[in-house]
Amino acid sequence: MSLITVGTMAFDAIETPFGKTDKIVGGSALYVAYAASNFIKPVQQISIVGYDFPKEEMEELKSRGVQLEGVEIVPDKKSFFWSGRYHEDMNSRDTLITDLNVLADFNPKIPDSYQGAEFLMLGNLSPDVQLSVIKQLKTRPKLIVMDTMNFWMEIAMDGLKEVLKHVDLLMVNDAEARQLSGEFSLVKAARKIIAMGPKYLIIKKGEHGALLFHGDSVFSAPALPLEEVFDPTGAGDTFAGGFIGFLAKTADISFENMKRAIIVGSALASFCVEKFGPTRLKEISSEDIEGRIQQFRELVGFEIELV
Amino acid sequence: MSLITVGTMAFDAIETPFGKTDKIVGGSALYVAYAASNFIKPVQQISIVGYDFPKEEMEELKSRGVQLEGVEIVPDKKSFFWSGRYHEDMNSRDTLITDLNVLADFNPKIPDSYQGAEFLMLGNLSPDVQLSVIKQLKTRPKLIVMDTMNFWMEIAMDGLKEVLKHVDLLMVNDAEARQLSGEFSLVKAARKIIAMGPKYLIIKKGEHGALLFHGDSVFSAPALPLEEVFDPTGAGDTFAGGFIGFLAKTADISFENMKRAIIVGSALASFCVEKFGPTRLKEISSEDIEGRIQQFRELVGFEIELV
Repeated sequence: MSLITVGTMAFDAIETPFGKTDKIVGGSALYVAYAASNFIKPVQQISIVGYDFPKEEMEELKSRGVQLEGVEIVPDKKSFFWSGRYHEDMNSRDTLITDLNVLADFNPKIPDSYQGAEFLMLGNLSPDVQLSVIKQLKTRPKLIVMDTMNFWMEIAMDGLKEVLKHVDLLMVNDAEARQLSGEFSLVKAARKIIAMGPKYLIIKKGEHGALLFHGDSVFSAPALPLEEVFDPTGAGDTFAGGFIGFLAKTADISFENMKRAIIVGSALASFCVEKFGPTRLKEISSEDIEGRIQQFRELVGFEIELV
Repeated sequence: MSLITVGTMAFDAIETPFGKTDKIVGGSALYVAYAASNFIKPVQQISIVGYDFPKEEMEELKSRGVQLEGVEIVPDKKSFFWSGRYHEDMNSRDTLITDLNVLADFNPKIPDSYQGAEFLMLGNLSPDVQLSVIKQLKTRPKLIVMDTMNFWMEIAMDGLKEVLKHVDLLMVNDAEARQLSGEFSLVKAARKIIAMGPKYLIIKKGEHGALLFHGDSVFSAPALPLEEVFDPTGAGDTFAGGFIGFLAKTADISFENMKRAIIVGSALASFCVEKFGPTRLKEISSEDIEGRIQQFRELVGFEIELV
């Protein structure tokens, strides 16, 4: 099985109540790749960077089985840069700087060597770019997962709804699910969004976990109660990478297996927030991941018989 | 096993986005009694009402095994009355009217026939009243559970902290846990609150479920994703009643059994919000409860082996 992941590779400068960073590497496709490569190789990356993106980071990714043939390097421009400051609750943040740089011209080309991938992760990008990737694939993947955000709902809702017709699973947060559907109840929102195209919907609720909807079935995954969320940047992308990486490894896209994949994604995300940027994701071993999954088992497991 | 429950029996007038009621019966001890009596008899009620509290409601409670010897009826005063309006998110509400009436003079006396109860549920009341009940019991119950709210943190924090030294388990919502502890992280908040006295802490998160803390252990219970929350009034008390009723029935206060009790409480609360006031609680059968618990099993169950 192979996995194509499309998204940004970028620089972030982050302020949280615990500290601040200078420019560090980030971007949705970077987090997806670090998370997914724990489970599946190759991860076939589609992105764009400038001359300033660190070669060592590229080498680190390659050493984990991430293919970079689909990453365009623009020699005379800078990489996408985002800077933001998180509030105390870590659920809200102010964007301080957005320098699109190379991202303004992102027009991804799928390398021939990527054709035939069974899994596709569309990171948060313009709906036009997401649709262009889908259309370039000669064989439709078994599973297409799409991330998006409120920004695109505000400026490109028609395009977003067009992409929705072509994907199997949408991931959004609770506020975005409400905005996209116009429904306050998440159960009603899920029904409306599923009617727009995707057969599966994951609603991410941050510290409250995530919900998976499919037909009349619902699965509720908890988030691990953490002493501190040091830096939430990339947690959603890490969740997505763990989720789709596990599905690709197991080659099973049933609802039952998606439950497992959500727990795996949540476990990966719980590491991501422990340090700035992708730092923690580079440190963890498969034993660390297994240990964290065991914590999830204990966190929600119960057996009950009413007589 | 028997259970003493202390709290209000009152009238509520409720407005939600779905409709409004005239005065209907309510109050923390009423909801606790309806929920707990599904599991344990007798429920020994301590409360105070005026001349206007309906006799049919008293008869209904008695028919479910609720003892009312500890309910004082004041012949020349009215029952406690609260009126409120919920906002669309159902997590916030405006209080329109609070008429204390008989509650201003509530000075509970424990009937001799209640002495020896193994379980005590202290509903949300003034800390002085809660402490007075504890002190009147000749044998300390096996388990004392306390509910409280932000109101008492603002006007009677010292008294509240004194009661905390005498109880085994505190139930509060997430905002109250943060207020009581001064910590934003719920994990840190739990540690601080447990250091104040109670060995167990339940943090209620509304539509996001509940967390149970004890030592280094945590259990995360989901809430059932509902199409609509019709009226959240009494949901917290219903949760408390289901929780302590199940513990009293099973006579097991281990952490493992508390996990089950939280699921039972959550199931009961999910019925409560389906109609105005306690209406739905009076309709449900043990088969309904078992069916709802099965939904919780399916909602969070997963099996995962990483190889």
